[in-house]
Amino acid sequence: MKFAVYLPPQALEGARCPVLYWLSGLTCTEQNFITKAGAQRLAALHGLIVVAPDTSPRGEGVADDPGYDLGQGAGFYLDATAAPWKEHFQMQSYVSRELPDLIETSFTASSARAISGHSMGGHGALITAFRNPGRYKSVSAFSPIVAPTQVPWGQKAFEAYLGADRDSWKQWDAVALIASAREQLPLLVDQGADDQFLTQHLRPELLESAAQEVGYPITMRMHSGYDHSYYFIASFLEDHFAHHAKALRAA
Amino acid sequence: MKFAVYLPPQALEGARCPVLYWLSGLTCTEQNFITKAGAQRLAALHGLIVVAPDTSPRGEGVADDPGYDLGQGAGFYLDATAAPWKEHFQMQSYVSRELPDLIETSFTASSARAISGHSMGGHGALITAFRNPGRYKSVSAFSPIVAPTQVPWGQKAFEAYLGADRDSWKQWDAVALIASAREQLPLLVDQGADDQFLTQHLRPELLESAAQEVGYPITMRMHSGYDHSYYFIASFLEDHFAHHAKALRAA
Repeated sequence: MKFAVYLPPQALEGARCPVLYWLSGLTCTEQNFITKAGAQRLAALHGLIVVAPDTSPRGEGVADDPGYDLGQGAGFYLDATAAPWKEHFQMQSYVSRELPDLIETSFTASSARAISGHSMGGHGALITAFRNPGRYKSVSAFSPIVAPTQVPWGQKAFEAYLGADRDSWKQWDAVALIASAREQLPLLVDQGADDQFLTQHLRPELLESAAQEVGYPITMRMHSGYDHSYYFIASFLEDHFAHHAKALRAA
Repeated sequence: MKFAVYLPPQALEGARCPVLYWLSGLTCTEQNFITKAGAQRLAALHGLIVVAPDTSPRGEGVADDPGYDLGQGAGFYLDATAAPWKEHFQMQSYVSRELPDLIETSFTASSARAISGHSMGGHGALITAFRNPGRYKSVSAFSPIVAPTQVPWGQKAFEAYLGADRDSWKQWDAVALIASAREQLPLLVDQGADDQFLTQHLRPELLESAAQEVGYPITMRMHSGYDHSYYFIASFLEDHFAHHAKALRAA
């Protein structure tokens, strides 16, 4: 597994720094975020380590699918239970346990963690935060898939990775998980109003209403004129770093 | 010809804004700078329009070469005089006249212009500023090829584009041009000390000494630990925008 790490000057000087995990979207690798988002300036400003994993296992012997939205590049940050995926596609264990363990023993990283992501990675950030109480100080997402059990991208992936039993899907669905969340984290969601995937695959209103129903505080912002691209992320990433830095500093 | 344009909010509100032209390096298109540099935030901050042209003519019927450093993607911002290049490779006329004319009639752009670039595009920015007195308010470069007549990248390209008469090459060489510059512009050059092309192709010390010889003020900064990549550009672009904004505002 390849992953990208940015160490701020504070970490290079030996300080134990909090870590922001960034989960990318469909078709991405560990490169997209570090190349396009302008995150390094913000990470240096706030003294955060940034870790950006790949979006799936890859390579020879790893199952794949010709579609861009299944298999390599499309791991959906869950632990697959159905063949042929279950052998390698254990992304939830990887991003929530294996990778943090590696980061916290290999770099001057503290155990204060925050998590964010885009699209499929926004879904990944939300479910990882909701499924792992006590592990993260804050969560945010750009243009997340919030209800994979209810939208085509999620249904295709979950059917493949988890099999036909739809009850088992709910433990990987942010809208389902927020209803029984055992802790309340600072939660920020940004969405472009001109995002081509908004009404079919993303449907952020489902997360907003599920959060309101259980009294989970959520800041959900719609931005007219913005689409699904990294230009949108770069435009508002400053706010996400401030959101996470505040929670991580208080930790 | 494709080119990228960023219009800051001030331009969208109808104000005539100054324009910063960015010339990219070998193998680049109009996409690299707008994707990787984080320029939009700075352009919005300073109220500058940013224009990033492609690095050569392209397409069917346009001459090319299998090398990455000649032909399409490697126009060197000069007007070619040798066949087969002279038919389409008129990049200097394009970036210094045709493109600004188009920008200034198509957008709410003022005629206050600045120019910058990276590597081959740093060469392009320098020669374009030095060759066109009165046309630009300021110039800067990251990791520029400063003396193409003296280094392998430049010699290969100039032999092809301009023919064997080396005297004719000098009008496209920043170190030669600065010696007879008819105006002094604010000039900032940033160079990574760990740039793999530093000693063979870039040789910034040649520009520094040529500038000192004629009393042309130059700010030349060497940065240890930085290479030839867009991460280097993103790290110091803020200073270049401030450099140009100051000159353009005074205009």
